[in-house]
Amino acid sequence: MPPPHLSPLSRSVFRIMEAVCIGWFTAECTLRFLVARNKWDFLRRPLNIIDIIAITPYYVTMALAGAGMPGAGLGVAGIFLRVLRMMRVFWLMKLARHFIGLQTLGLTLRRCYREMVMLMVFVFVAMAIYSALAQLLEHGLDTDSPNSDYASIPAAAWWVIISMTTVGYGDVYPVTVAGRVLGGFCVVSGIVLLALPITFIYHSFVQCYHELKMRSARYARSLVAVDIMR
Amino acid sequence: MPPPHLSPLSRSVFRIMEAVCIGWFTAECTLRFLVARNKWDFLRRPLNIIDIIAITPYYVTMALAGAGMPGAGLGVAGIFLRVLRMMRVFWLMKLARHFIGLQTLGLTLRRCYREMVMLMVFVFVAMAIYSALAQLLEHGLDTDSPNSDYASIPAAAWWVIISMTTVGYGDVYPVTVAGRVLGGFCVVSGIVLLALPITFIYHSFVQCYHELKMRSARYARSLVAVDIMR
Amino acid sequence: MPPPHLSPLSRSVFRIMEAVCIGWFTAECTLRFLVARNKWDFLRRPLNIIDIIAITPYYVTMALAGAGMPGAGLGVAGIFLRVLRMMRVFWLMKLARHFIGLQTLGLTLRRCYREMVMLMVFVFVAMAIYSALAQLLEHGLDTDSPNSDYASIPAAAWWVIISMTTVGYGDVYPVTVAGRVLGGFCVVSGIVLLALPITFIYHSFVQCYHELKMRSARYARSLVAVDIMR
Amino acid sequence: MPPPHLSPLSRSVFRIMEAVCIGWFTAECTLRFLVARNKWDFLRRPLNIIDIIAITPYYVTMALAGAGMPGAGLGVAGIFLRVLRMMRVFWLMKLARHFIGLQTLGLTLRRCYREMVMLMVFVFVAMAIYSALAQLLEHGLDTDSPNSDYASIPAAAWWVIISMTTVGYGDVYPVTVAGRVLGGFCVVSGIVLLALPITFIYHSFVQCYHELKMRSARYARSLVAVDIMR
Repeated sequence: MPPPHLSPLSRSVFRIMEAVCIGWFTAECTLRFLVARNKWDFLRRPLNIIDIIAITPYYVTMALAGAGMPGAGLGVAGIFLRVLRMMRVFWLMKLARHFIGLQTLGLTLRRCYREMVMLMVFVFVAMAIYSALAQLLEHGLDTDSPNSDYASIPAAAWWVIISMTTVGYGDVYPVTVAGRVLGGFCVVSGIVLLALPITFIYHSFVQCYHELKMRSARYARSLVAVDIMR
Repeated sequence: MPPPHLSPLSRSVFRIMEAVCIGWFTAECTLRFLVARNKWDFLRRPLNIIDIIAITPYYVTMALAGAGMPGAGLGVAGIFLRVLRMMRVFWLMKLARHFIGLQTLGLTLRRCYREMVMLMVFVFVAMAIYSALAQLLEHGLDTDSPNSDYASIPAAAWWVIISMTTVGYGDVYPVTVAGRVLGGFCVVSGIVLLALPITFIYHSFVQCYHELKMRSARYARSLVAVDIMR
Repeated sequence: MPPPHLSPLSRSVFRIMEAVCIGWFTAECTLRFLVARNKWDFLRRPLNIIDIIAITPYYVTMALAGAGMPGAGLGVAGIFLRVLRMMRVFWLMKLARHFIGLQTLGLTLRRCYREMVMLMVFVFVAMAIYSALAQLLEHGLDTDSPNSDYASIPAAAWWVIISMTTVGYGDVYPVTVAGRVLGGFCVVSGIVLLALPITFIYHSFVQCYHELKMRSARYARSLVAVDIMR
Repeated sequence: MPPPHLSPLSRSVFRIMEAVCIGWFTAECTLRFLVARNKWDFLRRPLNIIDIIAITPYYVTMALAGAGMPGAGLGVAGIFLRVLRMMRVFWLMKLARHFIGLQTLGLTLRRCYREMVMLMVFVFVAMAIYSALAQLLEHGLDTDSPNSDYASIPAAAWWVIISMTTVGYGDVYPVTVAGRVLGGFCVVSGIVLLALPITFIYHSFVQCYHELKMRSARYARSLVAVDIMR
């Protein structure tokens, strides 16, 4: 299987898009900083700090690339460079401010905190029990030719999460009859378990969306009213 | 793994089905053209242009095949031929006019434009962040034996979209513990993210369906009323 | 990968279970036949014909096995035997009569006939368009090393249906960048498309279930009333 | 594919977490035993028996490990040890008492008993029919080169359950055209079938959740009222 053949064209398109966006964000951030009355207060606001964190990695990697360090170095410096380069992706997060969808998502996640925890607890408990059982059935009880993919409980847990979410990469799968019966139950219970808290998150999302839509509509109307008043 | 063994029988059944449908559409289109008062006006209507685009490729490829060019040629001409042959499939789209389901789908897509964009934004932002993280964890930090499937961020993005939608082909999968933990979170958050805007599209679809059903029922009733009036 | 190791124990358990069920059905069917006033009328009722079709294959295969033909023969006789043996599974369908769930399913399918057709049309049209596009992008345009898994449109259609339903066996997957972008759109639109008509089927199923539950409750109450009357 | 490389660090973190939790549970259980008026009555309560079963395996395996039996022995003793070690995971189940989510899940499962059975019946009947058909199409009718993955009906049943739930590991997949058409129908009908009873379980879960939330709120209020009364 050959590695995906990314053409240089699409790579340079992305580079240009990134440069334009970063340039725009830098200009916007600088302008807001210049306009701000209290410069120190501006630098302490969390949203502005996020902006700076989102923009900085681009310039640092650019400067380092210009200085002849292409980031392929080994050791701590190389790893630091790679982490920095990865963080360049976070400028995409800044787009979130301008989309009502992403705002809704943020509000939903904050409100559904309890349900998110429930989802995690469900998944974690089911993973623990199924992975222990799968490790026993596929590796522990089969003393002749144990399935080496289930050698440890964490390895079995990977199979469980990939099966419960119905992803099924196929790198690990049961071969004994008992393991396959367990696999069937694991998958069906995973579908049921994952679906339950998601319903709550749905309803909360719908409510948040309508609230945010009404709020923005009210805001727009108030702007119009101000215009009329003038 | 042998390639799927398509029997010549089913291929010729499809050929005949295609010929009959294309023949029907050609006859219908020609009749409508002959009946039309203003020939020029007829040719400018978008739906008629779509019809002609849907029918033409069949005749062009047939003519070229008759002229001894079976489309296996290399270069621009061969590629043009293949694109043309692919467009022969579009006559299926013409069936859409006659199905209330596909009309509903079209209306839903037009109304849920905003939610479709939201879905795309969700998927795109999540892909960017997860693929940067996955590339770092599976390839960047593992200097000894980096997973070559995650060599670049676009390659990792393919893994992210296939995992978030729970497809899981298994051509790319994480092998490090950190990458697998990230994979678990990626899959669960993908299920949640994809489900959210789909709920809106559901509700809109249900509404559109009832509207179109009522409209067609009213239309049918008005036809009956006209019949009675006569 | 070794074939699943089905122990002789579970096989004989299934054999005994099958024999008991078939014996019960035979006894029940024979009794109903003996009790029936009009024997000819009994044999013409569709449900009784289904019963006979469900029971017969078991005895025929048993008789043939007793006669020394273990069904491994080649040619038309062997294929006929295998089809017959497969039909032995249909006695499971007879269980459907006694489960309210399967009755509900039957009623839902009959009522949602229109939505089932819509689902099929959606899947079929999307398959035609995506498979033509995938075949072009993965095989047609790549003249150097075409992906042989996408050699024909039906082969690409197999990839489309397995991707749209998020199964993803991994026997066929795109390798070019254009094919992967198409794959992402195909999967997301498949999730949306498949979800739409399923919502209708849900609502109808819920309604059918409540109707059947109320009907059976009313029936039970009327039986009690009859008992009290006596 | 190398086995997942679990670092000794994460393993020892888990060991410590387990020791702390088991220590906590042991202390809590001992305290409750000492405080209990009727010691014999305490030992007979089901929840306390579960607690003892959840805690004991840890100490038994620890004692055996201390005695120089690392559990790698063959025969019945080794298997017994492995089962015991697997049961050490059950202390996680004890956490369920303290989470409203897991209580809701328990209540839902008890109330939706009928729907769970329906789900199982649907899956079982569909598996029987599809696996018989798949075995026939992929192995029985293809006398030249039968697909050995479908050699028996139970082997085909594994493919059916993995396809109907849209997992799709890719260890077994159809190669003939008839088998692939059957696979498409199997997957789509699996999505529809599995979704139907899950809707009921949803609604019941939502209701249970609200009931338990209200009950705990009322309980909290009554505690406050008692405090005020004092």
